[in-house]
Amino acid sequence: MSDISKPISQRIAQLRQHMAHHQIDACIIPSADPHLSEYLPERWQGRAWFSGFTGSVGTLIVTADFAGLWVDTRYWVQAESDLAGTGIKMMKIDAASATDHIDWLASNLKSGQRVAVDGMVLSLSAERQLGQVLSGRQIQLVTNLDLLDGAWTGRPGLPLQPVYEHLAPYAVQSRSEKLALVRARMQELGAGWHLISSVDDIAWILNLRGSDVNYNPVFLAHLLISKDQVRLFVSDGKINAALQAQLSAQHIHCLDYKQINNALADLPASSALLIDPRRVTFGILESCPASVKKIDAINPSTYLKSRKNSAEAQHIRAAMEQDGAALCEFFAWFDNAIGKQRITEMDVDREICAARAKRPGFVSPSFGTIAGFNANGAMPHYHATPESNTVILGNGLLLIDSGGQYVNGTTDITRVLAIGQPSAEQKRDFSLELKAVIALSTAQFPAGIRAPLLDAIARAPLWAAGLNYGHGTGHGVGYFLNVHEGPQNISWLTPPEPQTAMQVGMITSIEPGIYRPGKWGIRIENLVLNVPGELSEFGEFIRFETLTLCPIDTRCIDKSILSSAEIDWINQYHATVKTRLTPLVRGDAFAWLERSTLPI
Amino acid sequence: MSDISKPISQRIAQLRQHMAHHQIDACIIPSADPHLSEYLPERWQGRAWFSGFTGSVGTLIVTADFAGLWVDTRYWVQAESDLAGTGIKMMKIDAASATDHIDWLASNLKSGQRVAVDGMVLSLSAERQLGQVLSGRQIQLVTNLDLLDGAWTGRPGLPLQPVYEHLAPYAVQSRSEKLALVRARMQELGAGWHLISSVDDIAWILNLRGSDVNYNPVFLAHLLISKDQVRLFVSDGKINAALQAQLSAQHIHCLDYKQINNALADLPASSALLIDPRRVTFGILESCPASVKKIDAINPSTYLKSRKNSAEAQHIRAAMEQDGAALCEFFAWFDNAIGKQRITEMDVDREICAARAKRPGFVSPSFGTIAGFNANGAMPHYHATPESNTVILGNGLLLIDSGGQYVNGTTDITRVLAIGQPSAEQKRDFSLELKAVIALSTAQFPAGIRAPLLDAIARAPLWAAGLNYGHGTGHGVGYFLNVHEGPQNISWLTPPEPQTAMQVGMITSIEPGIYRPGKWGIRIENLVLNVPGELSEFGEFIRFETLTLCPIDTRCIDKSILSSAEIDWINQYHATVKTRLTPLVRGDAFAWLERSTLPI
Repeated sequence: MSDISKPISQRIAQLRQHMAHHQIDACIIPSADPHLSEYLPERWQGRAWFSGFTGSVGTLIVTADFAGLWVDTRYWVQAESDLAGTGIKMMKIDAASATDHIDWLASNLKSGQRVAVDGMVLSLSAERQLGQVLSGRQIQLVTNLDLLDGAWTGRPGLPLQPVYEHLAPYAVQSRSEKLALVRARMQELGAGWHLISSVDDIAWILNLRGSDVNYNPVFLAHLLISKDQVRLFVSDGKINAALQAQLSAQHIHCLDYKQINNALADLPASSALLIDPRRVTFGILESCPASVKKIDAINPSTYLKSRKNSAEAQHIRAAMEQDGAALCEFFAWFDNAIGKQRITEMDVDREICAARAKRPGFVSPSFGTIAGFNANGAMPHYHATPESNTVILGNGLLLIDSGGQYVNGTTDITRVLAIGQPSAEQKRDFSLELKAVIALSTAQFPAGIRAPLLDAIARAPLWAAGLNYGHGTGHGVGYFLNVHEGPQNISWLTPPEPQTAMQVGMITSIEPGIYRPGKWGIRIENLVLNVPGELSEFGEFIRFETLTLCPIDTRCIDKSILSSAEIDWINQYHATVKTRLTPLVRGDAFAWLERSTLPI
Repeated sequence: MSDISKPISQRIAQLRQHMAHHQIDACIIPSADPHLSEYLPERWQGRAWFSGFTGSVGTLIVTADFAGLWVDTRYWVQAESDLAGTGIKMMKIDAASATDHIDWLASNLKSGQRVAVDGMVLSLSAERQLGQVLSGRQIQLVTNLDLLDGAWTGRPGLPLQPVYEHLAPYAVQSRSEKLALVRARMQELGAGWHLISSVDDIAWILNLRGSDVNYNPVFLAHLLISKDQVRLFVSDGKINAALQAQLSAQHIHCLDYKQINNALADLPASSALLIDPRRVTFGILESCPASVKKIDAINPSTYLKSRKNSAEAQHIRAAMEQDGAALCEFFAWFDNAIGKQRITEMDVDREICAARAKRPGFVSPSFGTIAGFNANGAMPHYHATPESNTVILGNGLLLIDSGGQYVNGTTDITRVLAIGQPSAEQKRDFSLELKAVIALSTAQFPAGIRAPLLDAIARAPLWAAGLNYGHGTGHGVGYFLNVHEGPQNISWLTPPEPQTAMQVGMITSIEPGIYRPGKWGIRIENLVLNVPGELSEFGEFIRFETLTLCPIDTRCIDKSILSSAEIDWINQYHATVKTRLTPLVRGDAFAWLERSTLPI
């Protein structure tokens, strides 16, 4: 186990010792693993161990006489508290994608000095960017050194959770069908080989799942596909003999996780290897002979898995019903308990997970529940800890953002609940938020439009009232896979690149927000499916089908702010929710559903 | 004068002769001049002379056995007719910015072959793109040869129209104030020198105007600014002695147009030259010693001139009143004449220009009038010619897009008029179009938002009805300068780069459209000014002030399609139009204004 008793200053001192030994002047520890995943296995949570900062995104840089942590707006408050007394300086940046730390290195190091970063956790595109800036200043970049290995006392090993199958009928396409589609695209691109390190792509192609990280049902592996065979690099013991035999019969051969380097080294000279520069690491490609031609493209599976087919959509609708029913049970419990017993944010988390766990097909939460009362709800990425945990009492708003992984779909939903008597200003914010959700939910738009360009449709009603929010409006969602998946993203912060084009079958969240720091936060989030809209002389259009099924708290609505079309939308939505969930709930939960879906 | 009697095939033959003489395998003739302007002086209309295609954008490529013209969607119909019988093939591309012709060269030429293009009309960024692709194929790019000079019989010379001053009070800031602002930015960027070839930037900085091209009140020149002096390169005789002396007293020295090359060649070694790679040519920079450091940035004057100050805004409001009054007179004439006399699209153009010409401060039209009846209105870039000229008769819609250059502002307005009885479908389209205009006109948005991200706000009401349009929603507009000016652009086709950020003082058009090919076209266009909106805890917001003052034809409105807020908007707009224009119109024009602004 990772040794957390050692003070941070001592951990940094250990790192500096190793840096000196290797003649390294600066060391970068990003928040990344060899698979460039959102959730990191413990083994790659080095940034957290060395800095003490437990937020999910940040970059640590250590030199002989400086240690700094680059964090974006979301984490300024937390980093300030986590870093207090460690001697590590917080370096504020605007967005997670900013490259301020690279500029800092360029300005603060001298020509000839050496910067180390583990190339095995650095995306190819990040290395290109970093290398270009540093080489421009004659600063040397060392990527073949994993300083953490020596300096991190008790560094965890590779996760060893078993891999299991995602079975029919929920796995709608077979492995061989999926591989055929990937290979067709490889052929189009002129690639005889394809390396995949992104674990959601691997899980999707092979209809396999795992539990190596929190929340996303994936397992650590690399995949190498050629025209006639597939090699899966995964730690020994994770795949049992029966499953290995079955895969083997399908020409999918399991090799040890670390064998990927040898396999790349052995690629035939002048073969062409398809890679996604943002989803493979610089380090892994270092194994690849220079004679192998690299073909850069978005992983074909990224597109394929983003477009859910109609059978998958049908499964997801069923998962949404179960999820909605679980929430009815939770809310019924909450409604009965509030005012009678002490309920904290952490209780909400526990109860909501327990309600989901009773539902057929449930596997795990799809992310850490955000349950924030009043001021805590104003932090979009809040997660209650024993220190922050607040009793839900008095008047105000409770924001709950939660989700589940089911074998037939991934859910992600945010609702805001009235506690006691919400104020007029809270009702106004809630109603404006609802206008934003409805504006985008009811939009129709040309097929192929780049998703970031739709963001303004949700924001316009909030902007009109002088409101705004710092996060994106919607992220793609997987099918019993990552709750955040690309390539589409409804966010004005995302460049509208070709891969963000909206296509039928994609699932995206709609979740604008209003955050009043120190007071309250409001976010209403539904998942929506891209379905065919009109086909006119002006082209093919797409509209959204709202998948999420759960009442929106009408006690928070100021009807005078909504148009009659918006009131119709909410009543119609509630009628659908009631019809779809009624068969799945009983007793208090049914009574709660009934009174929560009354027309306004 | 350019010899237009010679058949196209003979012109191409002449070009091939010169190509052979210089061992050139392919020659590119773009639609461009040394100033990378939208409207080209005759001297640089070589693409039109050699191909016979008179549309404004297209790229001609000629080899020994092939001649092709690359044109975007806007020009497919026209090019097909213009190129018929010339032996030149139409090469269809999707957008003007596409690089298909470069790909064609790369695929169709052999290693070692030579491609010529006049570097003096090729932007630095275009050369980088072209050079990269061709050098990858070992194809040589020759840029120091102007093949047109020999092959174009009777090629026109440089335009020699006189330059005149833009005087106070309409020129609100003095030359020295503007130069101080440009120099402050040069210093920030570490540039001792700044080369400007874009003629609107030069005209703005120096408060000078000219008439070297149609519609934009500019003159051909290059400008070289250093810390202590300014050199203006302009053809002899264009600036009279008195003005030269005045400029000289302000340390602005006039040199011959062609001296720019020598001036660049003489730049001190290791000086730093600020250039905008999209607004200077590769050819001109060839004169610059390699020892001169190039600093790439958007021209500082591009930002400065886009933000009109409050005195300029006040002048523009007055120009809009005169422009609106001129339109009232035109529409009153039209209303009386239609049905009594034969009126064609070209008559509309003539009468509308005549009405503007009577107004104080009028200088010229700001672009070629688009007056299109029914099917002609469905071509967004239609301009009536003697061949296409249509009599306005019967039932339908007449689209008129026109504008004027005034010493106190530039106007650009589109209105659609009911002729006879518009159909229910026409009224529906018109009312949906109006919804789109109102949606964006009433929007509030965060200061600094990138303009392309606002496009969806205008499109959403049209998308909802299965409609769309192929052009952008709005372009920036100059102050007695170019009717199309950057850096902002409300278009989903424009990458939302930092320079497109919305700032207070910018003027932009709002002009969505609906085009039913072969039937009718609808476009309503107003110019709007960015004015401060709310300042809240969520930041600073901007809203639009509609500048354009002219009734919108309420006979085309189907009220049932508009919301009550939209009906209020149109009534309020018409009340403002009536109040502001009443003092400036009499007789029939006043009567027309009165009846055209009645509430609906």
